Amino acid sequence: MYPDSIKNLIESFKYLPGIGEKTAERLAFSVLELEEEQVELFVESLSDVNKKIHKCDVCNTLTEDEKCFICNDDSRDNKVLCVVEDTKNVFLFEKLGMFQGKYHVLDGLISPLDGINPEDIGLDKLIDRITNEKFEEIIFAFKPSIEGETTSLYIKRILDGLNIKTTRLASGVPIGADMEYVDSLTLERALNDRKEIE
Amino acid sequence: MYPDSIKNLIESFKYLPGIGEKTAERLAFSVLELEEEQVELFVESLSDVNKKIHKCDVCNTLTEDEKCFICNDDSRDNKVLCVVEDTKNVFLFEKLGMFQGKYHVLDGLISPLDGINPEDIGLDKLIDRITNEKFEEIIFAFKPSIEGETTSLYIKRILDGLNIKTTRLASGVPIGADMEYVDSLTLERALNDRKEIE
Repeated sequence: MYPDSIKNLIESFKYLPGIGEKTAERLAFSVLELEEEQVELFVESLSDVNKKIHKCDVCNTLTEDEKCFICNDDSRDNKVLCVVEDTKNVFLFEKLGMFQGKYHVLDGLISPLDGINPEDIGLDKLIDRITNEKFEEIIFAFKPSIEGETTSLYIKRILDGLNIKTTRLASGVPIGADMEYVDSLTLERALNDRKEIE
Repeated sequence: MYPDSIKNLIESFKYLPGIGEKTAERLAFSVLELEEEQVELFVESLSDVNKKIHKCDVCNTLTEDEKCFICNDDSRDNKVLCVVEDTKNVFLFEKLGMFQGKYHVLDGLISPLDGINPEDIGLDKLIDRITNEKFEEIIFAFKPSIEGETTSLYIKRILDGLNIKTTRLASGVPIGADMEYVDSLTLERALNDRKEIE
């Protein structure tokens, strides 16, 4: 019924998470209402993302160059390494603008139940890097979950004896949250990790 | 902060209606997780939509050919013409599969308040077509609104004397709606248009 190109465009939108048939149709038709140059930029950026984006040689952050913008920045603090589970999180922290150290991006977290073992998430590259560079602190910035804890502990154990401080993000009650909606695990952690008021 | 191609892709997604910064970022990153061939199809369909899609010579329905799939279909009923305000609505009716006549797509509806006058919505082509082809009924399938009514009445007046039946879609209480949530105009119309139970 639809012309081929519109049909294919609807299918393409449906590849994206959270986009079903109806939304895909709406989006495809809205493309028809864009300026020609807007669609051209869209085409070009999609194609570029496919061709030019790859992992930074050093830290795995997605980049168009050999090294990402962080690894290329000599003003960053070489003493602190923030390990994340996904390249998106690098940009998340960079938006905050308060972390001055370096990053390392893993291919996800260890999750034996999902068949993801330590050798699947690129730990070798991380360990090599930690062994060769002179970090004083490794921050595990994983999501608070069994997988996050497992991965942190696994890496920490490998690093034993290297005399490097390892830390994790604080867990606790989110700012602005109503106490009654905070789940019990979070509340437990918030109580355990309580801080002295100075 | 983002590599250029990702930045441009985020901007491109933001061109689409209902997509803000956060959603655009999420979608752009999800493109990075697609198969290479999926992104290629996406690129190709976007580019094709831009280059190949245009209005049907006869009825304005979007198509890749000279004439759309409806105008090319000799089995359709040439006596009934369904006039719609947007090409999307042709596909909407075709999905129902119960209308066998032809369509004509206007460039929207007359709306003096928005500066859209009769000469802006492609009425000449419609009137020419009605004058030349032998339609017995014209259905105005516009959304029930001041603009829809204005446009129907305007066209009906031009057709006066041609001895063609003009009809509009029934308005009324949507199937499954709770009566208390139906607005008063719709209820008024439903009461006025009440049908005898046979």
